[in-house]
Amino acid sequence: MAPTIKLYYFPMACSLAPHLILEDSGLTYESVKLNFRDPAAKEEYTKTVNLKGQVPALSIDGEVITEIPAILTAISQLAPEKKYTGDSPKDVVRFYEWIGYLGSAVHAKAFGAVFAPYKVTDDSSAQEGVKAKGKENSRAALAFIEKNLAGIKTKFALGDHLTGVDAYLAVFVNWAKFHETWDEKAYPSYNALFGRITELDSYKRVLQHNAL
Amino acid sequence: MAPTIKLYYFPMACSLAPHLILEDSGLTYESVKLNFRDPAAKEEYTKTVNLKGQVPALSIDGEVITEIPAILTAISQLAPEKKYTGDSPKDVVRFYEWIGYLGSAVHAKAFGAVFAPYKVTDDSSAQEGVKAKGKENSRAALAFIEKNLAGIKTKFALGDHLTGVDAYLAVFVNWAKFHETWDEKAYPSYNALFGRITELDSYKRVLQHNAL
Repeated sequence: MAPTIKLYYFPMACSLAPHLILEDSGLTYESVKLNFRDPAAKEEYTKTVNLKGQVPALSIDGEVITEIPAILTAISQLAPEKKYTGDSPKDVVRFYEWIGYLGSAVHAKAFGAVFAPYKVTDDSSAQEGVKAKGKENSRAALAFIEKNLAGIKTKFALGDHLTGVDAYLAVFVNWAKFHETWDEKAYPSYNALFGRITELDSYKRVLQHNAL
Repeated sequence: MAPTIKLYYFPMACSLAPHLILEDSGLTYESVKLNFRDPAAKEEYTKTVNLKGQVPALSIDGEVITEIPAILTAISQLAPEKKYTGDSPKDVVRFYEWIGYLGSAVHAKAFGAVFAPYKVTDDSSAQEGVKAKGKENSRAALAFIEKNLAGIKTKFALGDHLTGVDAYLAVFVNWAKFHETWDEKAYPSYNALFGRITELDSYKRVLQHNAL
């Protein structure tokens, strides 16, 4: 029997990455849009679904999985023929190298400080400086990603098919656009990859669910 | 033929995690101790080994792999019988859930701000506040880890044998002790797990290589 899959997400959050992969997979799933602007809704979610109080969370037959690397791994296990974590054992290592970098240096460290400087310092007069440094760090990260993508000859980051790396990379383009740190001329390979992702029907469908 | 394996590390850095797993594996490898206090040595390493200028880096037959999740995955591929990323597909998902959380919220966000507040803000007068918040965040993370470990009945985090999760968890105990945020009474399950890790001969050998 097919498992019951639920993805808990917030529009345009990093949950967009597993959302795209789920939508692309053809697996049957339900997406549950959270309203984190309502404190009661957030508290209820934190109590009953994800103690970390964050998105994404993936529930498979009631078992909750958190953290992007784990959720992408779980979806890939459910649709092994799609090879969303890479084709060969070497590709799988590169997959986790990308995901590790994107989750720590890019998401947690750089963009995290831009979105939520109050989580980085209690001194409200220091928060503008933290945000500015976060923007600087995110520009450096986008440039590093560009450098890595500039050498590839394939359609997507790890080969000619979509993987979780592409889906996570798409998240940061949207965030950088929102924070006006995107520069398509400075990041031509990254921008071209993003263009190929946005052409996917699955991406278009997911964007509709992620309207702010 | 056995591959040529080199681990680039800095004493007591997060490189301790793959170092322990490599030492435990029985694989033949060379460990290369870096002197990051010498700017020329750091520049040379950044130019020739890891463009990110960070440890750890793992070289397998000359191919360099960075990022903890990828390095642990690669070592596990070289010693599949040890199941360092978990026994079953479900355990593997939990492995990447732990590693994702430890790499982003715990390492990059919480401890990163304690170690290097200057990477979080250019305003030197704000750096003490960033460091203090980093300590608060790291205490919250240690408490969350304790909560997760309190429920397990196995010898190690994912079962009765050592995995990369235990190795990464050991890193944070050492860091918390160094920064005086460790409290063995507040984290009894975590402390007991750490005790079981430190009893391993492989851990004792790795500690000798990691003397500061």
